[in-house]
Amino acid sequence: MCQLLGMNCNTPTDITFSFEGFAERGGRTDHHADGWGIAFFEEHSARIFLDHKPAVESPMADFIKRYPIRSLNVIAHIRKATQGEVSLRNCHPFQRELWGQTWVFAHNGNLKEFAPTLEGQYLPVGETDSEQAFCLIMQSLRQAHGCCVEKRTPTVGDIVNTLEPMVRQIAEHGPFNMLLSNGDFMYSYCSTELYSLVRQHPFSSAHLSDRDVSVDFSQVAGLDDRVAVIATRPLTDNEIWQKHRVGEFRVFHRGQTLLSR
Amino acid sequence: MCQLLGMNCNTPTDITFSFEGFAERGGRTDHHADGWGIAFFEEHSARIFLDHKPAVESPMADFIKRYPIRSLNVIAHIRKATQGEVSLRNCHPFQRELWGQTWVFAHNGNLKEFAPTLEGQYLPVGETDSEQAFCLIMQSLRQAHGCCVEKRTPTVGDIVNTLEPMVRQIAEHGPFNMLLSNGDFMYSYCSTELYSLVRQHPFSSAHLSDRDVSVDFSQVAGLDDRVAVIATRPLTDNEIWQKHRVGEFRVFHRGQTLLSR
Repeated sequence: MCQLLGMNCNTPTDITFSFEGFAERGGRTDHHADGWGIAFFEEHSARIFLDHKPAVESPMADFIKRYPIRSLNVIAHIRKATQGEVSLRNCHPFQRELWGQTWVFAHNGNLKEFAPTLEGQYLPVGETDSEQAFCLIMQSLRQAHGCCVEKRTPTVGDIVNTLEPMVRQIAEHGPFNMLLSNGDFMYSYCSTELYSLVRQHPFSSAHLSDRDVSVDFSQVAGLDDRVAVIATRPLTDNEIWQKHRVGEFRVFHRGQTLLSR
Repeated sequence: MCQLLGMNCNTPTDITFSFEGFAERGGRTDHHADGWGIAFFEEHSARIFLDHKPAVESPMADFIKRYPIRSLNVIAHIRKATQGEVSLRNCHPFQRELWGQTWVFAHNGNLKEFAPTLEGQYLPVGETDSEQAFCLIMQSLRQAHGCCVEKRTPTVGDIVNTLEPMVRQIAEHGPFNMLLSNGDFMYSYCSTELYSLVRQHPFSSAHLSDRDVSVDFSQVAGLDDRVAVIATRPLTDNEIWQKHRVGEFRVFHRGQTLLSR
């Protein structure tokens, strides 16, 4: 299986601290060494870095750790291959365009007997169950809400009404922890394992679980900053991470939970 | 306007030498300082690096120059903004998925009175004329050849039959030099300015026009290697670059011209 990392903020924030700990699990403190990827949103477009090398050995991951890219929404993934060979085309996060917005998706889990009917609007480039699930989600959103040629995009409520049942249906095929974003909202689903926390005033110091590195956020964050961090497993060992319930669907917006059910 | 750089090879090749000279034009030897981007294909998926900073000041461009990524097809672009503000969403190359393949596009030019009817299968994320043209091209290919759910993709001949007239039609709106690839073939159109050369045995030494750097390809290339390099303006000052005719549509495959008309 794989591991997920997400960030949703009210102020553009860099993820170098969290990514530094997360990347350690890509071959050093854990065995997710079959590639990695990270997407940084800027409005509705995204910078996506992908590599099929282990994150701990990847010069590109090293660059990301040293080069702070500020973003309101970030999705990262380290891969332990279950379906599909170790290759760029099977690296998460995946992206597709819908309604003139870039949508980005990453999955941790393993779907069995999952062969959705994809009608061609979105087709997988690689062989993973994950990219198939993403294509199905995008197809459902498009079919339910149209093409929006005039860029009248559906509301978050409309999207949730389509997305939540679809995600629950996919999760019947096996573990399906996922993160999805269009740059505005971050949608998460916890099928087996997902944690999150919100960092806001008063800020304190955080210490990584996977590396002996600390950051005192009271020194670097603004008074009004609010950052939600979502991860397969807690990334720090001195903060309280909230475990998502099995079957919990959440929407994050501006660094806090907008909806949970 | 902008500048284009493309590479199409028969063996995975790195583009660090050409990119080093090309990136100089992103703010040092020329004024294309409104962002840059580069796409490296790996089969039908692509690694794309985008930045709205000038290429000469971009830490990411610096990383690309030092980190050789080998690929059969590369498309790079440096931007001098004509339409759309300086922002990530307006950086080329753009990408979309069709037939389970990643398609990548970059444009140099400026289209006037260009408002194509986009039906929603592909919509622009940014505001450039270029991304509109790309969406129109992708829409035409999809409409002409269907969704290919079973991954029976059209032949290169089928694609050319749709693409060439569409490209010529777009070029009626203004300068439209472009590069397009799906990882198999590289399609180019010269509306005003485009050059190319093929490096193959016997290899010689090449010296950049924009920087005092040389590479002796006879020392680094294999006997059977063949590399086509395509650029808005010649990148080296001691090789013979072929000027494409105004109105010339070309298809490159495995480092050579497959079709030109």
